[in-house]
Amino acid sequence: MGGEFRFRDPALYERWYGERHEAAELTRRAVYGLPELYRERIASADMIGNPGCYPTGALLGLLPLVRAGLVEPRRVIVNAVSGVSGAGRTYSQRAENLFLSCYENVRAYSVGTHRHAPEIEQALADAAGIEAGEAEVVFVPHMAPMDRGILTTIYARPAEGATAERVRAALREFGETEPFVRARESVEAVRTASVRATNFADVSAALIERGSTVVIVTAIDNTVKGAGGQAVENMNVMFGLAETAGLLNPGT
Amino acid sequence: MGGEFRFRDPALYERWYGERHEAAELTRRAVYGLPELYRERIASADMIGNPGCYPTGALLGLLPLVRAGLVEPRRVIVNAVSGVSGAGRTYSQRAENLFLSCYENVRAYSVGTHRHAPEIEQALADAAGIEAGEAEVVFVPHMAPMDRGILTTIYARPAEGATAERVRAALREFGETEPFVRARESVEAVRTASVRATNFADVSAALIERGSTVVIVTAIDNTVKGAGGQAVENMNVMFGLAETAGLLNPGT
Amino acid sequence: MGGEFRFRDPALYERWYGERHEAAELTRRAVYGLPELYRERIASADMIGNPGCYPTGALLGLLPLVRAGLVEPRRVIVNAVSGVSGAGRTYSQRAENLFLSCYENVRAYSVGTHRHAPEIEQALADAAGIEAGEAEVVFVPHMAPMDRGILTTIYARPAEGATAERVRAALREFGETEPFVRARESVEAVRTASVRATNFADVSAALIERGSTVVIVTAIDNTVKGAGGQAVENMNVMFGLAETAGLLNPGT
Amino acid sequence: MGGEFRFRDPALYERWYGERHEAAELTRRAVYGLPELYRERIASADMIGNPGCYPTGALLGLLPLVRAGLVEPRRVIVNAVSGVSGAGRTYSQRAENLFLSCYENVRAYSVGTHRHAPEIEQALADAAGIEAGEAEVVFVPHMAPMDRGILTTIYARPAEGATAERVRAALREFGETEPFVRARESVEAVRTASVRATNFADVSAALIERGSTVVIVTAIDNTVKGAGGQAVENMNVMFGLAETAGLLNPGT
Repeated sequence: MGGEFRFRDPALYERWYGERHEAAELTRRAVYGLPELYRERIASADMIGNPGCYPTGALLGLLPLVRAGLVEPRRVIVNAVSGVSGAGRTYSQRAENLFLSCYENVRAYSVGTHRHAPEIEQALADAAGIEAGEAEVVFVPHMAPMDRGILTTIYARPAEGATAERVRAALREFGETEPFVRARESVEAVRTASVRATNFADVSAALIERGSTVVIVTAIDNTVKGAGGQAVENMNVMFGLAETAGLLNPGT
Repeated sequence: MGGEFRFRDPALYERWYGERHEAAELTRRAVYGLPELYRERIASADMIGNPGCYPTGALLGLLPLVRAGLVEPRRVIVNAVSGVSGAGRTYSQRAENLFLSCYENVRAYSVGTHRHAPEIEQALADAAGIEAGEAEVVFVPHMAPMDRGILTTIYARPAEGATAERVRAALREFGETEPFVRARESVEAVRTASVRATNFADVSAALIERGSTVVIVTAIDNTVKGAGGQAVENMNVMFGLAETAGLLNPGT
Repeated sequence: MGGEFRFRDPALYERWYGERHEAAELTRRAVYGLPELYRERIASADMIGNPGCYPTGALLGLLPLVRAGLVEPRRVIVNAVSGVSGAGRTYSQRAENLFLSCYENVRAYSVGTHRHAPEIEQALADAAGIEAGEAEVVFVPHMAPMDRGILTTIYARPAEGATAERVRAALREFGETEPFVRARESVEAVRTASVRATNFADVSAALIERGSTVVIVTAIDNTVKGAGGQAVENMNVMFGLAETAGLLNPGT
Repeated sequence: MGGEFRFRDPALYERWYGERHEAAELTRRAVYGLPELYRERIASADMIGNPGCYPTGALLGLLPLVRAGLVEPRRVIVNAVSGVSGAGRTYSQRAENLFLSCYENVRAYSVGTHRHAPEIEQALADAAGIEAGEAEVVFVPHMAPMDRGILTTIYARPAEGATAERVRAALREFGETEPFVRARESVEAVRTASVRATNFADVSAALIERGSTVVIVTAIDNTVKGAGGQAVENMNVMFGLAETAGLLNPGT
């Protein structure tokens, strides 16, 4: 569940997490546990690096469009708004997590320096079939006054030949194929409240003519699909169980 | 306070507001009431189009950097997160404004279709000294579970010669010159809670090497600097009063 | 689920609900669906009046102590604080249910006039073995800025012979016997967050020397144990299923 | 501002605050700073014990009715619901003050043991003209998910001769006489949101026939009238300034 086995290159871990990797020799053996991207490799793996919450939210919007060649994997902007539980291991008795610090407050944090940025880039490069290090993401997480949920708004350049129709079709197909992805009819219909206490990711996208930008919006519950729910999903895949076993009603 | 006198071109109003302009002949006479951009013209005007809340939040971050030639006025991405009162005239007894629709919920709305986008573009073109219609903004507003405040996160391309140092200096100078702008030392220090019930706009920016992007963050209270507070400020300028008269402690 | 079959006396319904009872002849046949009080009658009933949310929260604290003869069933004060969904059928597009009306706001409503007061009194009289109409409750509901959950704080006079020890013992036994009641070690440990999205009722009580008062605190999720969850529980009892069937993980 | 000079008897301080009083000889000289009760003594005092937030909310509802002989000062039940900032000096980086502990949560705390109970009793005895120690209050504070505001719901027995009419009249007169008290037309109209960021106390009361109880509801902002605002008010009285000086628009 930690960051140690999310990067194939242990140097990347050491640079972004600021500490020595205690089992660097194992990182190549571990598979990044995003079933929508690496399902087959997860099925035969004996070690999984379970994804971070923000990368899950970002990648589930980007994957279907990058794979279909509809958006560019460079200068992708990932703007995420999370509930307070999304602060990860920093969830502790710090002043910034007190009720009076969070209530009636929205703020950005770790702008351009969050360790989830290289995690997004690594999987994005795989999805796009380009070299690691060529995918390029600007990632800005924000904190909003709610307990859980992440809404991720992604701004990407359309690739040549991308049309609104083809963008919608790619997402629709992704939703039909993936057990925990629900394609919504519009970006406005993607909401953190709709995925609360579930392992679902809601996704949608719109092609904005002016500015020539694809806006992709996804919602996950960072404490389920963004954490333990996805870990259970990976276990299901590893052990040949139904992928949804135990996950269709995770409760709170 | 409405949208009628925010556009110089009444056709723009009619297109985005979907109704006939009842006093189109007056639009050229009205001045767009953003003192940080048009203070001198406001001083001699007899008619002001008071800015929308989102344009205020976006422009106060963009102006100093566009004027200093540090960011490009094209393909600017404006990602804004607002409290529920930011929904403007749609604040009414609609299902989406009920407590149970807003609580524990973040969502995007009017993606690429919000009438505040052309309002931002008009003033941005003026600030950049380019033709109306050449500035290009992708604007995505979001709703978060708080009553007021707007955090605007802007992604812009650095112009040639832009450095982190020059970006910071331009904002610092803007904060020193403008009575209601406070330049913060970091983008993480800009927070809606800090401007609640005040006419202040907090601003900061960071240059992100990877992806070559300037991230600008601003915070305003949409019901003060984004509405009536700014209207009073404009009156002060029009009547030759101290610009801050009545505004340093607006209360709730 | 409505109020029609919660009163044995249809006149009581007509008085408090302000409308004619369309099936008055059936009210004597219906059983009040609080399993903790009427489990045996529910098992043989073919018609259930499913309790209101506030009566459920109040009665689950009062029953064990009234039945054990430890508190008086007269001049009982029931102070309840509910999330916005507790407003019952008035949950609709009314101004008082808008986000901006509820946020940062606590208020009392229907003071001394809420239709749940006679519902509490009817069951309380049964539990105490006194005449209908002799139990006496002052009921004040409040609204707090959260979506669901009811915290009920009850102030009752201790009966002769009541001791802190006996009060605790009665609640402990209630918790051990009842599948959906959890006795907490202190009134401070009873919290709406602990019962969110569950069919559980958390209960505890303290005997306050000064003022000679028993303070009972209960927490339920008004949308589960206070509504549909309890209805399913009643169905389980009626059909001879395990009482907890389908209810141990109701999710959201 | 602390508790040291709120009690005339230093032994009471030592018992409830659990520490030695370092200046016990000064307590008789200090005046309890509730202007509505002790205005004249405050005017000539050189030392004020500024009231706690909960006592302010409770006493401003009880005073006018106890003084008019309309409610009994014994077995008074004070049920208060506060925002998180009401936790007083315990506002610190404790787990129970974290956002995730407060959100979607209402709970009681310090039931029957809160140090504000004897503070209420001392002033209540004065107002009723009875011996210190004869007033009798059961006090239960609660925490709700908002930042500030206290709604106090008080249950008291009507004295002989009390009528709904006389209760209303006493409160109305109190509101007309006191600069910071506003009598509301109904208990339902008293709301924490109405007093936010002000030094006002909103009050109202209803006589409930059934159960023979007077329900009094008050609302204050615990950080203004319940703290620093009232301290400024006391200074104004001590120095012969207008009592409202600097307080009519305290802002946030």
